[in-house]
Amino acid sequence: MSISEFDIIKKYFFDKFPINTSFLKGDDCAVFSVPVGENVVTSTDILIEGRHFFSNVDPSSLGHKALIINLSDLAAMGAKPIGCLLSLALPYIDENWLEKFSNEFHKSAQFQECFLIGGNIARSNNGIFINVTVFGSISPLKILRRDAAKVGDEIWVSGTFGAPDIAYRLLSGKILPNIPLLEKIRSTLEWPNARLNLGQVLAEDSIANAAIDISDGLLQDLRHILFSSQVGANISYSSIPIDPYLSNLPKRILQESVLSGGDLYELCFTADPKNHKKIKKISKNLNIPITMIGYITDRINHLNVMNFQGSKLEPLPNNGFDHFSDFSLIKK
Amino acid sequence: MSISEFDIIKKYFFDKFPINTSFLKGDDCAVFSVPVGENVVTSTDILIEGRHFFSNVDPSSLGHKALIINLSDLAAMGAKPIGCLLSLALPYIDENWLEKFSNEFHKSAQFQECFLIGGNIARSNNGIFINVTVFGSISPLKILRRDAAKVGDEIWVSGTFGAPDIAYRLLSGKILPNIPLLEKIRSTLEWPNARLNLGQVLAEDSIANAAIDISDGLLQDLRHILFSSQVGANISYSSIPIDPYLSNLPKRILQESVLSGGDLYELCFTADPKNHKKIKKISKNLNIPITMIGYITDRINHLNVMNFQGSKLEPLPNNGFDHFSDFSLIKK
Repeated sequence: MSISEFDIIKKYFFDKFPINTSFLKGDDCAVFSVPVGENVVTSTDILIEGRHFFSNVDPSSLGHKALIINLSDLAAMGAKPIGCLLSLALPYIDENWLEKFSNEFHKSAQFQECFLIGGNIARSNNGIFINVTVFGSISPLKILRRDAAKVGDEIWVSGTFGAPDIAYRLLSGKILPNIPLLEKIRSTLEWPNARLNLGQVLAEDSIANAAIDISDGLLQDLRHILFSSQVGANISYSSIPIDPYLSNLPKRILQESVLSGGDLYELCFTADPKNHKKIKKISKNLNIPITMIGYITDRINHLNVMNFQGSKLEPLPNNGFDHFSDFSLIKK
Repeated sequence: MSISEFDIIKKYFFDKFPINTSFLKGDDCAVFSVPVGENVVTSTDILIEGRHFFSNVDPSSLGHKALIINLSDLAAMGAKPIGCLLSLALPYIDENWLEKFSNEFHKSAQFQECFLIGGNIARSNNGIFINVTVFGSISPLKILRRDAAKVGDEIWVSGTFGAPDIAYRLLSGKILPNIPLLEKIRSTLEWPNARLNLGQVLAEDSIANAAIDISDGLLQDLRHILFSSQVGANISYSSIPIDPYLSNLPKRILQESVLSGGDLYELCFTADPKNHKKIKKISKNLNIPITMIGYITDRINHLNVMNFQGSKLEPLPNNGFDHFSDFSLIKK
């Protein structure tokens, strides 16, 4: 008994959930419209078994996360989701896996109103590959970009830091096993949220100047803002909100995860100090922790992380998460 | 010496070619606008080493083809390209490969005015994975769809048939080696074109009723039109234009490739007979062979392939190319 590409698409993706009638399905392309005067905002990301997720990960969480990590990019631009495309390469058909994966994918898509409008499925020779492309829209005047940070801006972050990276290091055996801790923080790695509401408010009311999501680690992503905006930053390590479950970890391990740990789909943004109170109010209204951790300086590309005494904290991890950090120019 | 994800993106994709200034680069998302009153048309496709291309394929042709096969989907809808996103998963960094791949990708993108506006790169554990998403635009009233074929419509195809599939079968050893033939037809597999101009004319002047591209094989793709439009079709095998280099091949092998061979990025469309002369003129103007091969009937989902005497040709290959045809429900 075999199941064809078209049967899989029909059974798990086409038939499963109500189709938003403004979209076409089953053609060579998906079609959608954008509100008059708005631009299309789009991002794409690939998830690779063994690199971005463990082979034994719950397929439900994978279905959720595959969409959320892309929605996080829309959030960082302040955009409202429209729809998404899914490319799936599977080494074999496991209907139990497909059932769980597609259920959660659709659930997140419906919750965030980012409906699946097209895609394709193919057989891989080795491992699962998931590529999601998302579309959103926003007025071109309101887009949150990386290159708009201004000297004197306050630097803010949403959420708490450290937990997804510690969970990853526990699961991959890179730090000593700690099952009680893993149980408490595992969901931060496997069931992240995208800060769409926050991004939209920051853009709509022109609260933020520059924004980025922290998928590659706080320092690395903040450096993108500094480089694009041609500014510098001072941040205070002790101001960074750390996940409370991590308080007993060795200081060095914790610092690495807080400053450089990837897979954290929070927003980092800069805003004029005059918006300080408004941001505090947004935090309360949306019920999202939003914390000021420093300010933008005129020292181009200089990023200083200060400790709570105000002196420099040394040594600092230099880089965020880089999918290619272990790449070599020599073929293996 | 190592090269980071960001260095690769900068060196091979960001710095290489002039950026269309209407697009942003380097943000979490790419941004583009659509002409007033038009819809966005989008498609995504994954190419997997060892499944969709041979490991030793010329990276130049791969850079070309990765974009073209997606543009072919835009062509089938009658859309005008806007831009594209590229996800690349590589097992190691081969700068020679990246140089050739990116050069041809950009060259095709510039030629077709479908500029690269974003993407990502990651390390794969095994083999190369390329996922391209393309965007185009078209008035919603003019979109070519699969579900609009009408009883009595003539069925047309562009180009000639058989060569890419025969080239694939020669390269994979599925038929007896024939180096002189392979040399003549190999480019049809590795350097396909997308029929964008044709699709746009058929849509703009409302010449065609339904259209599809023949990436999965003529019979299978025509069946998609029949199913979506709830009609049938009679086509004449002897009317199908076959690549002239294939004339000496055994009849059975040739029939399979002509009727069911995939990887052919030609258009199949249906049109009212009153447009017959206009289509002949379009063929001449665009210098593209466009051939009438049959007509639409009212026998829902019935597809008859007739031989040149008008009697049924038996046996017929039943299916087109299916990326999952050798899938089993049993895990390997």
